[in-house]
Amino acid sequence: MTTLASEPATTPREARVEFRTEPSRYRHWRLTFDGPVATLTMDVDENGGLVPGYELKLNSYDLGVDIELYDAVQRLRFEHPEVRTVVLTGGKEKVFCAGANIRMLAASEHAWKVNFCKFTNETRNGIEDATANSGQTYIAACNGTASGGGYELALACEHIMLVDDRSSTVSLPELPLLGVLPGTGGLTRVSDKRHVRRDLADYFSTKAEGIGGAKAVRWRLVDEVVPRTAWAATVRERAAAFAERSPRPADARGIGLPPLDKTRTDDRVAYRYVDAVLDRDRSTVEITVLGPEEDAPADASGVHARGADFWTLAMTRELDDLILDLRTNETSLGTWVLRTRGDAKRVLAHDALLLDNARDWLANEIVLYLKRTFKRLDVTSRSLIALIEPGSCFAGSLLEPALAADRSFQLAGVFEEVDPDADPAAITVGPMNLGPLPMGNGLTRLATRFFGDPESLTAAESARGGPLAAADAERLGLVTFAPDDIDWDEEVRIAIEERTGFSPDALTGLEANYRFTGPETLETKIFGRLTAWQNWIFDRPNASGPDGALRKYGTGRRADFDRKRV
Amino acid sequence: MTTLASEPATTPREARVEFRTEPSRYRHWRLTFDGPVATLTMDVDENGGLVPGYELKLNSYDLGVDIELYDAVQRLRFEHPEVRTVVLTGGKEKVFCAGANIRMLAASEHAWKVNFCKFTNETRNGIEDATANSGQTYIAACNGTASGGGYELALACEHIMLVDDRSSTVSLPELPLLGVLPGTGGLTRVSDKRHVRRDLADYFSTKAEGIGGAKAVRWRLVDEVVPRTAWAATVRERAAAFAERSPRPADARGIGLPPLDKTRTDDRVAYRYVDAVLDRDRSTVEITVLGPEEDAPADASGVHARGADFWTLAMTRELDDLILDLRTNETSLGTWVLRTRGDAKRVLAHDALLLDNARDWLANEIVLYLKRTFKRLDVTSRSLIALIEPGSCFAGSLLEPALAADRSFQLAGVFEEVDPDADPAAITVGPMNLGPLPMGNGLTRLATRFFGDPESLTAAESARGGPLAAADAERLGLVTFAPDDIDWDEEVRIAIEERTGFSPDALTGLEANYRFTGPETLETKIFGRLTAWQNWIFDRPNASGPDGALRKYGTGRRADFDRKRV
Repeated sequence: MTTLASEPATTPREARVEFRTEPSRYRHWRLTFDGPVATLTMDVDENGGLVPGYELKLNSYDLGVDIELYDAVQRLRFEHPEVRTVVLTGGKEKVFCAGANIRMLAASEHAWKVNFCKFTNETRNGIEDATANSGQTYIAACNGTASGGGYELALACEHIMLVDDRSSTVSLPELPLLGVLPGTGGLTRVSDKRHVRRDLADYFSTKAEGIGGAKAVRWRLVDEVVPRTAWAATVRERAAAFAERSPRPADARGIGLPPLDKTRTDDRVAYRYVDAVLDRDRSTVEITVLGPEEDAPADASGVHARGADFWTLAMTRELDDLILDLRTNETSLGTWVLRTRGDAKRVLAHDALLLDNARDWLANEIVLYLKRTFKRLDVTSRSLIALIEPGSCFAGSLLEPALAADRSFQLAGVFEEVDPDADPAAITVGPMNLGPLPMGNGLTRLATRFFGDPESLTAAESARGGPLAAADAERLGLVTFAPDDIDWDEEVRIAIEERTGFSPDALTGLEANYRFTGPETLETKIFGRLTAWQNWIFDRPNASGPDGALRKYGTGRRADFDRKRV
Repeated sequence: MTTLASEPATTPREARVEFRTEPSRYRHWRLTFDGPVATLTMDVDENGGLVPGYELKLNSYDLGVDIELYDAVQRLRFEHPEVRTVVLTGGKEKVFCAGANIRMLAASEHAWKVNFCKFTNETRNGIEDATANSGQTYIAACNGTASGGGYELALACEHIMLVDDRSSTVSLPELPLLGVLPGTGGLTRVSDKRHVRRDLADYFSTKAEGIGGAKAVRWRLVDEVVPRTAWAATVRERAAAFAERSPRPADARGIGLPPLDKTRTDDRVAYRYVDAVLDRDRSTVEITVLGPEEDAPADASGVHARGADFWTLAMTRELDDLILDLRTNETSLGTWVLRTRGDAKRVLAHDALLLDNARDWLANEIVLYLKRTFKRLDVTSRSLIALIEPGSCFAGSLLEPALAADRSFQLAGVFEEVDPDADPAAITVGPMNLGPLPMGNGLTRLATRFFGDPESLTAAESARGGPLAAADAERLGLVTFAPDDIDWDEEVRIAIEERTGFSPDALTGLEANYRFTGPETLETKIFGRLTAWQNWIFDRPNASGPDGALRKYGTGRRADFDRKRV
């Protein structure tokens, strides 16, 4: 069996994972439409694994299957505004979905497993976001057993239906069978979303065969069980009922999401508005986001007319793809340096256009997508350093990356030797920073930054509208440091070099704690508490060692556990 | 260097850690009194390590040092009600406290490190509890550098003073020096308690030399810096000011806490009211808590008269000691089976006496101690199974262990062959279950159990007062299962055996998630999010491998990190 464990520091081109896809290329999903109801049918190609070495039996999935799901969820939002209910169902007999492929997990190295879980988590959060904020409600129509990640996928849906046939169940068999936890939010959603009582949840999560029928409803594990004879009609009925409640406009016309224009080499990832230079010597990626090249259109119709070319959407798609590419393919580049370049006023004008038309479905979708993409930054296990220089446009939506960063530097004044006449580096707080782009904890990045310090928050929010020079931004606490031309190079160099010298694991833990000050939500509990425990368990010999449960699964031999409780 | 890594499954008697101590036996702390102000001076005996192999230089600590601190905090509450301010300070020159001893950490096995951090965390939470609820406010008088765990100890205090001498700083050097996180709540308290801005907190936590002087105040890391010339007077002044605000009675007389009567062998831990049978074949501990042997006294004066013999206090002290003993010395006994035996009415009468006299300082202290002890159960990495049988007294305060359990079984009826005329097994919800004993998440165990299900919570709370037979308790969701005599043995046996067969690590993660449904607090963030990340980092080769930072510290050689970001 080919193993992923020998992945070298630089992923060879042919092994790089590519996140761009489109329905005509799907191998694992079918997307069909019936008026306001779309059906997303999982029908995994056993031989379509992303990496050789395993067969995707029983509708089990790997990263490749989830990349297609993510693409489908995105396209439903942008290309199919008429869709109000999405029915997620299975295309196999007896089984809805068996969850993440176990042989794939067993053969994967630790970083791969963790990154895979992160992406699948984000996709499931996106499903919940579509239900909550886009008027596209997801229903899980489990026409067979939903186990492990299969049940976790159902848990991300608003309504879970299970066929009542005396054999189909929902289950989380990871603990009893594999010695690990469900990896994509299962425990948190069972308790904090569906409110299954903690002792029943505990019992359920230790019972490999799962629970079906009336008990599954009584314990709140599913919303209803339906006999096979009534299945198709009941699914249709529920889909229609949820569609009825959606505020989506009936006559909206979607916009196409054409393939991103991307140039990818060993040392560069370049798109139209986003550029990343991979500096392997310094274990660093230098990312630059360009502001709009033209003025914002006059009204919402201009947003529709530009479609995928509208700057905010185009830039967000590129940034999204870059984050996923770097996370998956460039694990050894531990520090991302974030810059912007362009006209701050144009950024703010694009922001204003979107927010002034918040009731327009497309404007709404673009802002939600921006929100989800910046949330990816928050849970990215890379150190983020923002550099605010003359010519940059850290304003409104593009100020968010600087607020997401672990540290930011704003040049006091200009680079005398580069352009003594340049406008000094500035940042601008705008309406986008005051609510529309919350973090997973439910707060804006500003409110998280000033958590427990309401006066500073008010001061920062009150400074909105105009450009803030380094001294003001530093005084307001909006940037970490504001060195001048003389100190800039040295201070920035030390910050980046230092970061590269620290333990990558300790940095991941540090950032995961400090980035989420304040209240916790379902989402932060999944990425904070649950993921951290899962990472620990994944890395323990009892799971991943030669005699661990993940390795022994399917061999007919039992895992040999170190029984010590930690 | 002797290493702790070879600890066998059964801790030999001479290596067992004992938590019982008293001031006359302290090697590391001095406790002095001046009216309402107590001073707790840390002056660690370099050669007084709990385990051979390291010197406790620079006021660094190991578990033994913290056991004494815990004892002092407890005695201050019970034996010294006149104390209103506790000044925590250092007895060395230049250094307040250097934190956990690094050679001890480097030589310790994973389970030891994690258990050590858990206990130190609980002691620091206890310090905050004394400040918040007992009118004993802790002040950190950092008369020299407070680094790592030393600063974390200060963070648990209400007010942090740092000497301003151009060299003393506060610091969290764990990440830059050791490749791990601060292990006792540092990150969470810096951000969520002291509201240090996240980017400054990040910078601070990567700067090994720390921050002192005015900047430490400006960044909120300490409350004030004081020149050495004004030090003693200012500390006195602050101590007096906090004492002024305390509601503690001036004329109260403390009660003594005599040594616990404890019999400890390889297969049993026995006290007066608590008994534990260590079943190594089944990796299980059978714990029985006895109810009161006599009726509750008529009023608060009776509580004072009985002092440490008052049932609730005596039982709590024993249970507390047992939990600490088993956690530390019996890591391979992964399941704790909880039983009670006695008269439920007497338990409820003791509860009522305490709650009716909530303004009495001793009654208040006993309830707070009970609360902290049950909280220990919640964060104990052992599976907890409660067995509710005829003759048991799971009522009020003693119902809490059943509510803390991962699973509970209540016998429907009686054991026909044992005593067909016995009263059937019953539980009773009492006032103690409705507020005075919250979990770390701020909710009662009942509210956590029924999180998101207010009707069931109301129904359970409304059933208070009278005994509930198995069918009622099951219907109300207060117990997990209610098998009858015929099924009992088999069901219970399977539950325990199954638990023993699962991955101990996965169980720890499962329980840490399900036990804390609902809101998160400083405390649950420390035990959930922060601890999980720390466990993961502790277990990674970058920290604990032969070339990891923990092992390389002090050798003059740098750690050799795998640079891959996970």
